[in-house]
Amino acid sequence: MTLSAVLDQIDADLDQSTDRLLELLRIQSISTDPAYKAECDRAADWLVEDLKTIGFDASKRETPGHPMVVAHSGGDGPHVMFYGHYDVQPIDPIDLWDRDPFDPQIEDTAKGKVIRGRGSSDDKGQLMTFVEACRAWKAVHGMLPANISIFFEGEEESGSPSLIPFMKDNAEELTADIALICDTGLYGDSTPAIITQLRGLLGEEITITGPNKDLHSGMYGGIAMNPARVLARIIASLHDDAGRITIPGFYDGVPELSNELAASWDDLKFDEKEFLGEVGLSKPAGEQGRRPLEMIWSRPTCEVNGMTSGYTGEGFKTVLPSIASAKISFRLVGTQDPFAIRENFREMVRTMIPEDCSVEFSDHGAGPAGHMNTTHPAFDQARKALSDEWPNAAAYVGCGGSIPIAGYFKDILDMDAMLIGFGKDDDQIHSPNEKYDLSSFHKGIRSWARILAEMTA
Amino acid sequence: MTLSAVLDQIDADLDQSTDRLLELLRIQSISTDPAYKAECDRAADWLVEDLKTIGFDASKRETPGHPMVVAHSGGDGPHVMFYGHYDVQPIDPIDLWDRDPFDPQIEDTAKGKVIRGRGSSDDKGQLMTFVEACRAWKAVHGMLPANISIFFEGEEESGSPSLIPFMKDNAEELTADIALICDTGLYGDSTPAIITQLRGLLGEEITITGPNKDLHSGMYGGIAMNPARVLARIIASLHDDAGRITIPGFYDGVPELSNELAASWDDLKFDEKEFLGEVGLSKPAGEQGRRPLEMIWSRPTCEVNGMTSGYTGEGFKTVLPSIASAKISFRLVGTQDPFAIRENFREMVRTMIPEDCSVEFSDHGAGPAGHMNTTHPAFDQARKALSDEWPNAAAYVGCGGSIPIAGYFKDILDMDAMLIGFGKDDDQIHSPNEKYDLSSFHKGIRSWARILAEMTA
Repeated sequence: MTLSAVLDQIDADLDQSTDRLLELLRIQSISTDPAYKAECDRAADWLVEDLKTIGFDASKRETPGHPMVVAHSGGDGPHVMFYGHYDVQPIDPIDLWDRDPFDPQIEDTAKGKVIRGRGSSDDKGQLMTFVEACRAWKAVHGMLPANISIFFEGEEESGSPSLIPFMKDNAEELTADIALICDTGLYGDSTPAIITQLRGLLGEEITITGPNKDLHSGMYGGIAMNPARVLARIIASLHDDAGRITIPGFYDGVPELSNELAASWDDLKFDEKEFLGEVGLSKPAGEQGRRPLEMIWSRPTCEVNGMTSGYTGEGFKTVLPSIASAKISFRLVGTQDPFAIRENFREMVRTMIPEDCSVEFSDHGAGPAGHMNTTHPAFDQARKALSDEWPNAAAYVGCGGSIPIAGYFKDILDMDAMLIGFGKDDDQIHSPNEKYDLSSFHKGIRSWARILAEMTA
Repeated sequence: MTLSAVLDQIDADLDQSTDRLLELLRIQSISTDPAYKAECDRAADWLVEDLKTIGFDASKRETPGHPMVVAHSGGDGPHVMFYGHYDVQPIDPIDLWDRDPFDPQIEDTAKGKVIRGRGSSDDKGQLMTFVEACRAWKAVHGMLPANISIFFEGEEESGSPSLIPFMKDNAEELTADIALICDTGLYGDSTPAIITQLRGLLGEEITITGPNKDLHSGMYGGIAMNPARVLARIIASLHDDAGRITIPGFYDGVPELSNELAASWDDLKFDEKEFLGEVGLSKPAGEQGRRPLEMIWSRPTCEVNGMTSGYTGEGFKTVLPSIASAKISFRLVGTQDPFAIRENFREMVRTMIPEDCSVEFSDHGAGPAGHMNTTHPAFDQARKALSDEWPNAAAYVGCGGSIPIAGYFKDILDMDAMLIGFGKDDDQIHSPNEKYDLSSFHKGIRSWARILAEMTA
């Protein structure tokens, strides 16, 4: 089966591919809000029907939450499992959108055409790159080049509560030679990227209580314990002056970057001035003496994601707060053990709580870092295919974020996974005015067609 | 003119006095909310009419805000000016009230009868103690014992924007030999208190901006400046380990307690275990080596009244905040200069702002500490009168809070002031279920009758 005809078909069919994506984007499948339950169902139904038109044996599978979509092409060749998610983030704050988030449209911008709308990049546009690649193969050759399974979930943006039970209950059906995941981005604008390591994530919330109610700062100020001051001291103590995290044992399991990876990352010529400049910053603020790319890909972090205490409205209130709380998260690397770090963090906090305060901890999830098995032949095949499609050669990169699905595939199904995506840094996923470049969509479809060709060559 | 007949009249008329107060409490004179403008007018009208029945030449005086009430009895004897405020705090959160805040009622409680309703203690119940004392004098003797002026404002709970201009425009009319202010409390349950020193107040808000928008902590965590961490470091640095404030020059003008005052405060046998125990605390948390009463009356403070950054809702959001802010206030004593402290505070904060952050300051008011002139003969007279009425002798006490009116009387009218009030610590002023003990009201009226008698003896 020839690839070039498939690529021609993709180019010729782009308008129709885009129309199909726009149709899917109009479905308001916000998974976290129960009001959109029927819309999530509708998105699953739409995908099942669409996959059937390509010849997949596709079905909607109920869960306690939103349904899964599972489809199989059958046929010969390597067995490939493709994963994506059809649910989207909420649209708040709605008044920061320049258009109805669920009335998507192609827009001309200074940087080229974009598909604007909620879910265009995360993840409907990305998952449709693979579906459209399959459609083109089928149209040209009457069949797919491999034995392809597809697995879409509808709860990725709301914590995936049904995912693990569903994978366990359907382990055999969901297991393939390799999983392909399309929920990540390019490196820069034109370098295709294969993620080889993902940081883990530990979320903690600490709530410190001092007096049993808010007090008047005239009456009690100077004699009463102020939990906001206690919280500030704790947060201030979490990093030393060199930006290192002070929790005992925190760096256990943090590997040094290999010379090979260091060289390949240096080749990427990461421009930290530009990266930070876009968000109004100028200087890397992490651990001293580390490469900027290490700071975001291979070094662990401890960050305050939120904190609150006392009166935070307009004007002023001379109140001594009863409570101060903070949401603190850790990005983890290597073999750092999230559960050990949680215990050490909590113990360190407890030692800083004075006699008249109490502290409570809430657990907001814990997952270790992920490392892909780059010795699986699919990695070299994908790297070649992507390098053929894009101006720059494909790169093995790290990812500062945490995408637990790859770890689940490994742990539950003993299946290696490969993360490839075509999003861009300015796609504004999870934010107002989300977009997906039309070129990401077009070349993304072509990329999957090429990858499937390489894998089945 | 004999005092005993006046006291008998007060006792005999208590039910009617209470009914009048309940009538005034039914007027919803919330000054901060424009929706209650007409109610503030109505409270002023009610007071004018009531004062006329006692023979005062009373009038409502318009201001750009809510009206003042000014009344004069004329007549011989020392000229006394009585100040109070007829406006009340908002009633939120309304669902924490056990009854309609503006449908006041006498309630039997374990500690005796209380008048429950918004403004019962702050300040309608207190100001009516003086009015009822005048009424009793008039009823018994056909005249008042002194040349009495009355000055009620209706904006005390909303920053008194019209007060200073009105005082300046009517300086001659408002100036008397001494001002009496009834907006404070007893010491404990049965010790009448004359406030001789008030702490000043400086309010500051700092807003630190790092990145120009909230960032994803996976993508930027480890490389981007987090302003919440910067804010925590600043707050943590404001006190040393001994609880002293570290701002340069902060203690300039902070006097040591005189031996005399120290002895008299020690006589009060302040029970810090009980004081703190009621709010769930056990240990004085202020400057080491200071008396607990010093901590709240005569030592300056620096407190966080509120702070916020990033995501503070339910659950978790892995956001790196763009902004972190805190409301910080200082209680000032002696001759501490609020404007110098503001500048020194801001300068210290600026030195802690890293290159990639900016800081903005908002001014939430500044007023120095107040010291009453206890050599004015009215102080000894009031102390004797109060000691006659109450089980315990009257005490000269400090006040941790900030009541700027006394300072205005001194600065604008060159008039000494004396603060005497009958509130209790558990009156829940500014909070749901505000109350005023019926005994505070009754003995408060009797106290003013006695004070007027002493002053004109």
